[in-house]
Parts: sequence; C-alpha cells; structure tokens
Amino acid sequence: MSSDLSAPSASVHRPLVVVSNRGPVTFRIGDGGELVAKRGAGGLVSGIGPLLVDTDATWIAAAMTDGDRIAAEQGVIEAEGFRVRTLALDPEQYRMAYDVVSNATLWFVHHHLYELARRPRFDVRWREAWAAYQAINEAFAQVLVAEAPPAATVLVQDYHLALVGRTVRAERPDLRTVHFSHTPFAVPDLFAVLPDDIGREYLEAMAAFDACGFHTTRWAKAFADCCARHQIAAPATFVSPLATDEADIRRVAASDACQSAGQRLRATIGDRRLITRVDRIELSKNLLRGFLAYDDLLERWPEWRGRVVFGAFVYASREGLAEYLAYRQEVETLVAQINGRWQTEAWTPILLDTGDDFPASVAALRLYDVLLVNPIRDGLNLVATEGGLVNENDGVLLLSPEAGAFERLGHAVVAVNPFDVASTAEALHAALSMPSADRAVHAGRLRELAEERSPSDWLREQRSAVEP
Amino acid sequence: MSSDLSAPSASVHRPLVVVSNRGPVTFRIGDGGELVAKRGAGGLVSGIGPLLVDTDATWIAAAMTDGDRIAAEQGVIEAEGFRVRTLALDPEQYRMAYDVVSNATLWFVHHHLYELARRPRFDVRWREAWAAYQAINEAFAQVLVAEAPPAATVLVQDYHLALVGRTVRAERPDLRTVHFSHTPFAVPDLFAVLPDDIGREYLEAMAAFDACGFHTTRWAKAFADCCARHQIAAPATFVSPLATDEADIRRVAASDACQSAGQRLRATIGDRRLITRVDRIELSKNLLRGFLAYDDLLERWPEWRGRVVFGAFVYASREGLAEYLAYRQEVETLVAQINGRWQTEAWTPILLDTGDDFPASVAALRLYDVLLVNPIRDGLNLVATEGGLVNENDGVLLLSPEAGAFERLGHAVVAVNPFDVASTAEALHAALSMPSADRAVHAGRLRELAEERSPSDWLREQRSAVEP
Repeated sequence: MSSDLSAPSASVHRPLVVVSNRGPVTFRIGDGGELVAKRGAGGLVSGIGPLLVDTDATWIAAAMTDGDRIAAEQGVIEAEGFRVRTLALDPEQYRMAYDVVSNATLWFVHHHLYELARRPRFDVRWREAWAAYQAINEAFAQVLVAEAPPAATVLVQDYHLALVGRTVRAERPDLRTVHFSHTPFAVPDLFAVLPDDIGREYLEAMAAFDACGFHTTRWAKAFADCCARHQIAAPATFVSPLATDEADIRRVAASDACQSAGQRLRATIGDRRLITRVDRIELSKNLLRGFLAYDDLLERWPEWRGRVVFGAFVYASREGLAEYLAYRQEVETLVAQINGRWQTEAWTPILLDTGDDFPASVAALRLYDVLLVNPIRDGLNLVATEGGLVNENDGVLLLSPEAGAFERLGHAVVAVNPFDVASTAEALHAALSMPSADRAVHAGRLRELAEERSPSDWLREQRSAVEP
Repeated sequence: MSSDLSAPSASVHRPLVVVSNRGPVTFRIGDGGELVAKRGAGGLVSGIGPLLVDTDATWIAAAMTDGDRIAAEQGVIEAEGFRVRTLALDPEQYRMAYDVVSNATLWFVHHHLYELARRPRFDVRWREAWAAYQAINEAFAQVLVAEAPPAATVLVQDYHLALVGRTVRAERPDLRTVHFSHTPFAVPDLFAVLPDDIGREYLEAMAAFDACGFHTTRWAKAFADCCARHQIAAPATFVSPLATDEADIRRVAASDACQSAGQRLRATIGDRRLITRVDRIELSKNLLRGFLAYDDLLERWPEWRGRVVFGAFVYASREGLAEYLAYRQEVETLVAQINGRWQTEAWTPILLDTGDDFPASVAALRLYDVLLVNPIRDGLNLVATEGGLVNENDGVLLLSPEAGAFERLGHAVVAVNPFDVASTAEALHAALSMPSADRAVHAGRLRELAEERSPSDWLREQRSAVEP
C-alpha cells in the first residue's frame, strides 16, 4: 500500500500536494500489527476530503497516533482513497509548537482573545516554544523539498504552518505554494502584541508563499495592513470562502442516525420552538453571551417561557489548555443557573449536548426555528451554511458580523452584535415572532447562497491563484 | 466671589470655555460655613491650569464634593485664579455614567482592555447606564447653551463628554466647539464591540463638534477609520500632543520636598543603579510585565543582583472598580514574590511606593538611570517628558510604541514592546550597560524634544482648530 510521492500525475493541472496539521486519515495498529486506517474529522477534511479521494493528490500531515508514526516510516500510504504522508515529529517539540505557539498564541492573536493587561507574556520559555514551532515548520518544509513531485502545486493550510514557504521557495523553486488561513487575521494594532522580530518573521514567511488566501476580504486586508506596517511587500492575496458540501451534508441529514436523533429531539421539544447552536466549546464562539441573551429573552418576554427550547450542541475542544477547561466550566455553570432559574417539571429551557454527535447536531440544524451563530471573531463558520442547507423549518439565521461567513451571507440573515446581549435577546424574540412568509424568504435566500458555492470552487480558486 | 459667565472678554481671541469632568478647583465647606477652594490634581489641570489662571476663561466641571455642590448654586466662582462653574449632577446618574460607561466601557474600548470572550456584556442594565451617560452629557450641554458667552470657543475634554457637541451645535450655532481625546481611539474592529446604535451615536456626536483633537496621528486615524466604517462624515480632526510644563516640573524638582525625597531615595539605593517607573495603578500601564522583565533581568544577568533598585512610584486609581482592586493586589503580590526571591539583608530589589507623593515621584525621575514607560496602550504619557526634563543622571528612557508619546519621542528612546517580557529584560540590561557617552546623547535628545513643546502650544492649537 506504500507508493512514491513523485508518482506521475494524471491531472491536467500540476500535481497537487495538500499540507495541514491534521490529515484526512489516522492509523491505528491492528491486532495483527497491521495499520488500520480511519477517516479523520474536522472542517478541512470534511470540506475538501471528498474532492481529493481517488485523485493523485498527496496529503501531508503530522503523525498524531502511534499508528501514524509507523505509517510515517513507509512514506506515502494509500488509505481510504487518499495518498497520505504522515510526518513523525518530536512529541515535546510538537506539543510546544501546537499548544503554546499555534493555539495559545497565534489563535489568540488572530481572534483578538487576549486580556492584554495580563496576557500574553512573551518570556524566555515562550521563545523556546517559538523555536519548536520553527522546527516543526521546517520538518514539513523538508518533506516537501525532498518528496514533492516536480512542479507541484502545494496548498499549505492554516497558521500552524505559516513558515513552511521560506525553505520551499529557496530550495524548490519549481513548486507553486499557497498558504490558506482558516482563521481571521489580526488587525495591525493587535498583531503588534507579538515580539517584534517574531511578528516580522511570521509576515515575511507568509510573504514567501506565492499566494496567501483568506475566507474574506476583511482578513486579507488585515494581513496586507500588517505587512504594510512592517514595510514588507505583501504577496499575492486572494479571497475564497470555503463552502459546505451540499451532497455530503444532505447525506448526513438523510441518514438513519440523523433521522432517529431528529425523532428523539422532536419528542423532547414537543410543540415548542427550537433555537439551535452547534459549536466547539471555544473562547471565540461566544457561548456565554448566547445563553445570557436567551436568559434575557425569557426575562423580558414571558410568553416564551415553556414555549421554546435552546438546543446547544457543543463539544469539547483543546482541553489541554487550562483556558478552555475553565471556559467549559463557565458554560456548564451558566447553563445550570439559567435552567435552575426557569425550568418547570415539563420544560428544560436549555438542552446542553456535549456528546459531539454529528448526526444529532445535523438533526438540530434540520429542525431549528432560529440558528444562533454569534462568534466574537471567526475565520468563516460553516455551521451557518450547513444550517441553511438542511433546515426543514424555514428557520432564521442570527449571524454575527464578526464571522467570516457574514461577508457572503449578510443579506440572508439577521445580524447580531456578539457583545450586545440585550440586542441579541431582541433579535431572538423578533426571529421567533417572525411571520412565516418572512421566515420562508429568509430561509430561501440563505439556502440559495449556501448552494451557490461548493468546496470544489474553493479548491479550484486556491490552485488558480498560482496556476495562471 | 461669584460673577457672570457672560462677562465681556478681554482676550483677543473669542472668549474661552473649558469643559471637563474634573475641574481645576474643588471646594470644601469651611468651619464658618464658607467655601474654601483647593487646587485639583490630574494631568489636565497641571498641564493647562497655569495657562488659564488670571484669564477670563471659564472652566466647567462636575461637582465632586459637597462644597462643589454648594458652589454650583452660585454660578461662576472665581477661586485660585480660575473662573469655575461647577455642575451639580444626580449622584446615582453620575456614578453610572462615570463608572459604568466612561471608565468600565469607553476607557476599556479605547485601550483594547477587554477579555472579549467574557467582557463586555451589554445588557439591559448597561443600557440604563448609557441613558445616564446621555443625561450627564446633556446637563453639561445645557449649561453651555444657557451660559456660554456669545461666540465663545468651547474646549470639551475627553471621552466622559463625547456627546456634548450635538445639543450645543443645534442650540448655540454661535459657539465653536472642540472635542479633545486624551485617550487612544479604538481601531474599528474593537470599536465594533459597542452596541451598533451606541457606537453610531458616539461617532455622530463627536462629528457634531467643529473639530476633534488627538495626541497622535494614529488615534486620529483610528477615529477617522471608525467614522468611515459607519459611513459617518468625520469632522475636522487635528493632532496636537499635550506637553509637560517645563517651568512647573522644574519648580517641583527644585522644591524642598523633592530635594529631601531625593536625599532619602539616594540613601536607600546607595551606589546602586536606579530603574524608575511612575504610574497610576492602571490596567493599561503594564506594571506586571515591567516587574516580570526586572525579575528576568536579575535571573539572566546575575551581575545586576544587589547592584540595581527598581523604584516603582505607583498610586491607586479607580478603586471603585473591582478590576482595579484585583490588579493592585496582583501588583503587590508579584512585587512581594520578586523581592522574596532576590532580596538580601542589604538590598530590596523593588521599592514599591504607593504613597502618591508627587515630589517623591519627581525625585525618582531626577535620579533614574533607566525610566520604564511600557504601557500596553496609552493616549500620550507625560511621565516620559517629565523624566526627560528633570533627570540629572543622563538616564535612558525605555518607551512602549503603544504610548502616544512615542510618536514624537521615538528617536530619543529605546523602544520596548510591552508584551515582550524577555526583550524588555534585554533592553533593561542594555540600558543599564550603556556607555555614559551614549547615555548622554539619549538624555540630551529626549530633553530637547521635551523642551520643544509646551502646554501653551497645545492650548493654542486647540483654539486655532476652530478659530481660523
């Protein structure tokens, strides 16, 4: 099942290599010592995975499991229809690069999450983590240098791998390289929290790609503004929002698992209205204010007491970081408080489902009257389009302008300022009270916009950014 | 001692009215029931107070004391050389406007202080505080409408009073109005945390002044960018950094109180080097990372142990807000930890002086080898120029580029990224190690720049912005 990365390409395009932290497949070691492949999860894999199955594209990703490490020794492996090249990395180095730099620094910088009076604190130990981030990036770069097919197009995904382009440009000028950011990009005043030399290195490294892609013009502009502030010539940038795979999400919606989850949910909510949210338990997603707005709705519009349920399908994330554990506890405490305040024998105001059950989440998207997507800052947000595609109830989407998805969907949604709890409560009331004809118009517009783009548009636009 | 606000002007200019939250004088009730005036403190008063003494300018400010409230009934009062008009305001309304809106919202917004995952939360109660802020602003506006001399120039100071211009423009078109911001101005992505209608109202109200002034081009641009995002036509803007009054600060430096404080300080530090900071205990001032950098200095350069003292002259601020009490405790705990780690019988590494003794602070400015001014975001910062004017030791200024003062002083200082603890430690070491010839060049340049501007430049530029 092993093959060579430089196998001849059957594509009319240049050969394609995708590079990301997490790959489309993970391996475990079977009972007989053999490698057993399993499809991975995550937005990127579900978004473009189907497009790369049974193509000659190669996907390079960090080894996550013991099986992945064994697979790494075998070079490219064909599994689950993918050509996968896992990369065995030093575990402590990887942990520092991933936890300390990628997730606790770059993610926080681009999402404006720091409480600046206290964090970040770039000390000598943090510099060691940055060295680890450099080393991990360099390990990816060296695999590309050694193994990428001649003249390939290389699509590097996200902030974990922002430095890969430098070495590749220097040592493999035949390759065309793209960096695509799935996050927002910090505005210059907040990008400036990074140590000066490191901010500069990060931007210069991104500028070493042939093109940098973003989900919105807003993030692309922030990147260009940061380059301008550092007097770095920005590379070609392009804007290409990822999209939900319509066929894929409809397949899930029609699945037995989703249908029976829908029946269970319907049995629970009865003839009440349903507000849905589907999110990782993530600081940028703004779960707390969503629940506070719901509490305010019940406070100020007593007619909704007992007549609405908030179905929160939220699942754990990054629990290796203390910040995220604390946030999860706050979420659970707040939900318990609000339920304690309003619940009756027959009615639980908030259903908090942390089971990370995708079919159950899709069932909640099929059935919502109102979908709440109110992040404080979000690269794109695919829940908005997933909801638009599978909802069967002419539901209304409440969408934060701080979600990248707003740039394309703004005319089909009700905008909610994520910091404005009172206005969010008012928007919930207005959406729940909306005449059915208006709901149908909203839902129809959203569906049209969601159908308008597909992951293949996104993939094609990435390639065409460097394949003129 | 009472007189009329519309007394004829002897000025060659239009009559002048200054409006600010805090006035130049407060009153207490004497033993015989009479009003006893006392000069107030604060940057604005010490900056432009001397320029307005014995002029026909009138200063309108909120009543802070019982004496001020009695004074308010008498209209304009001449006291300490000022013509003062205090304004009696509803205490609860004032508290909501001042604590909740001005200090816990607008200050946080413009200084980028929020931890956005959790704060702010604009709820129904916050809307009541905003109504109070509107009412307080309207009370100031109504005094101007009723009492400002014909064709006066009105200089409204700071974010507490951003809404005053609207009513004045509508009802007293003969007046020329300026709003001057002593804070930074938030960039659009962070100004957007305000509720949409309120952000718009705030910007439209500022646009109702004839001109808006800022300490730096950077804050003026952020304001213009916010207006552009809301499609509001920005008013005339001008940039005019306030300056330290050279004569005034030299007078303090030469005073007996300052001289004896200097002797005491010198006796304490002996022949050790002195790092000085002078600040309010304020979230934006970045005290914690300053101490952490000093700890790192002692850790990485053992030669400084026992040979340097960090004199931190910091004083309490806004202790009505829980945030500030908590921050003060963190500061005190951290100082105790660092002292506990390094101190010897003969040497206390950090002198934490929270006595709010201005002559003692100026003594520390006279004697510093290194002055640390490392705010995370600061409208201007006058400590930088005060230090430059009175230092007698060819000391080196370490200044954050996030302080407005950096725009004018940048070439005379060592820049320190306020979030970069390791680099700040390196800058402390480099400054302490700097050859005396280089120190003299630094200190000389800083002194020249500090002497270049005076408060009267600032006052003149405010007037000329609307008196063509």
